[in-house]
Amino acid sequence: MEAPTILVSNDDGVHAPGLVALVQALREVGHVVVVAPERNWSAVGHTKTMHKPLRATQVVLPAAEGITAYQSNGSPSDCVALGLLGLAGRPVDLVVSGINDGANVSTDLLYSGTFAAAAEAAIAGVPAFAISLDAGQYLNYRSAAAFAAALARRMLARTAEAPGERPWLLNVNVPDRPEAERVGIQVTRLGTRVYRDALVERIDPRGRRYYWIGGNVPTGLAEEGTDIGALAAGDISITPVHLDLTDEARIEELRAWAARDG
Amino acid sequence: MEAPTILVSNDDGVHAPGLVALVQALREVGHVVVVAPERNWSAVGHTKTMHKPLRATQVVLPAAEGITAYQSNGSPSDCVALGLLGLAGRPVDLVVSGINDGANVSTDLLYSGTFAAAAEAAIAGVPAFAISLDAGQYLNYRSAAAFAAALARRMLARTAEAPGERPWLLNVNVPDRPEAERVGIQVTRLGTRVYRDALVERIDPRGRRYYWIGGNVPTGLAEEGTDIGALAAGDISITPVHLDLTDEARIEELRAWAARDG
Repeated sequence: MEAPTILVSNDDGVHAPGLVALVQALREVGHVVVVAPERNWSAVGHTKTMHKPLRATQVVLPAAEGITAYQSNGSPSDCVALGLLGLAGRPVDLVVSGINDGANVSTDLLYSGTFAAAAEAAIAGVPAFAISLDAGQYLNYRSAAAFAAALARRMLARTAEAPGERPWLLNVNVPDRPEAERVGIQVTRLGTRVYRDALVERIDPRGRRYYWIGGNVPTGLAEEGTDIGALAAGDISITPVHLDLTDEARIEELRAWAARDG
Repeated sequence: MEAPTILVSNDDGVHAPGLVALVQALREVGHVVVVAPERNWSAVGHTKTMHKPLRATQVVLPAAEGITAYQSNGSPSDCVALGLLGLAGRPVDLVVSGINDGANVSTDLLYSGTFAAAAEAAIAGVPAFAISLDAGQYLNYRSAAAFAAALARRMLARTAEAPGERPWLLNVNVPDRPEAERVGIQVTRLGTRVYRDALVERIDPRGRRYYWIGGNVPTGLAEEGTDIGALAAGDISITPVHLDLTDEARIEELRAWAARDG
């Protein structure tokens, strides 16, 4: 069997340590091609560039010699689109986005470039996962990358078994633990973020008002069975996600109240 | 009872005709405050700016005199955050985003600034809807705005009835029909987009390669019961949406295959 092709992207930029660790681990699983942003696109959300030209230039990854890698001025979603539409040079079997520097849980997914890159793949019909390190004192990208490689093998096997299936899209978060430590794995649903934003008003040197969206860092409810709960328990979280935002449970109820007179 | 406060935003910019029509209609429903981008943010997705200062300056809307309106250098989501966090000057009861120039259906929601603005409100616990005109030859924003006003009244009534409820978040698309024509209303789920992107390679005057993400405009499957189907039938589509991307149906299945050896 031919080696599978894995397209790797991220939102921290092509030379970010999380991406390099991921490439080093995934090259044991298949043929890896990198298309990633030239700069940091954190909190960019799901942007696709239809109205301006995109650059993509080949770069050397010093810690992953021999890997074909491109950097682009596009967003993470653009990078995946470029890769899938031809830049990868061959059909892509799996897209992996990360390893992000910082967890992406709950409604973070709506803002996350790391997740948007994986979602772009799923929209194009290609299985994908986003992986993030809940980065703390160890910055242990290596263990997260080893987990990514194992998961990539399983996703490729699953896709080979059930080829017509709607592509799997997973969001993975890895706690930052020492390399020697054994870490559990939980399949989770997305948890609930508690935002504590506040508007901070300032005056610039010319006397004009401006604002920061400040306040406390959002916290999460560490409920059992959620991504936030798994990280709080020191476990890896894998969440199956989809992109259908329909609130099925409310369709009938909306029919009732939207149709009323008044 | 005090008049409800309605915060209006969009992604086409504060002077866009769709926003102006919306404000003209909603001022009959409550106290309207506008916080909208100073420029067009189409296809921006769900961006929130935590790392740079935001400007917000008051502007006059020539066709909606007396309305308090701000333009900001922030994204649509930023504009809503600014409004909710204090710029509106009072607690906001409802956020309305639009009227977008062009339909937002199916996976468009992941890219749409119009929808992102409404989603930002829902995350902050405030009911909201996004409204888009499937703009064609009539550019009939006025009828869409009249529908928005009727829907705003019903959402405010609903929220008053059931105050503890998770906030309603709706995505509305209006077909572009002549003003005299009677248009039906369907409560729908999100439909399926068929993307036909293609990579178009070009060479710049200095001999360097660049790319467009081109190809055909994405089409939709006009299935009954979906937003795309409703528009195809000439009806208004209202879709209840939520922001929980968990693929509940796949949690058990993922547990099974992710845990297997190999």
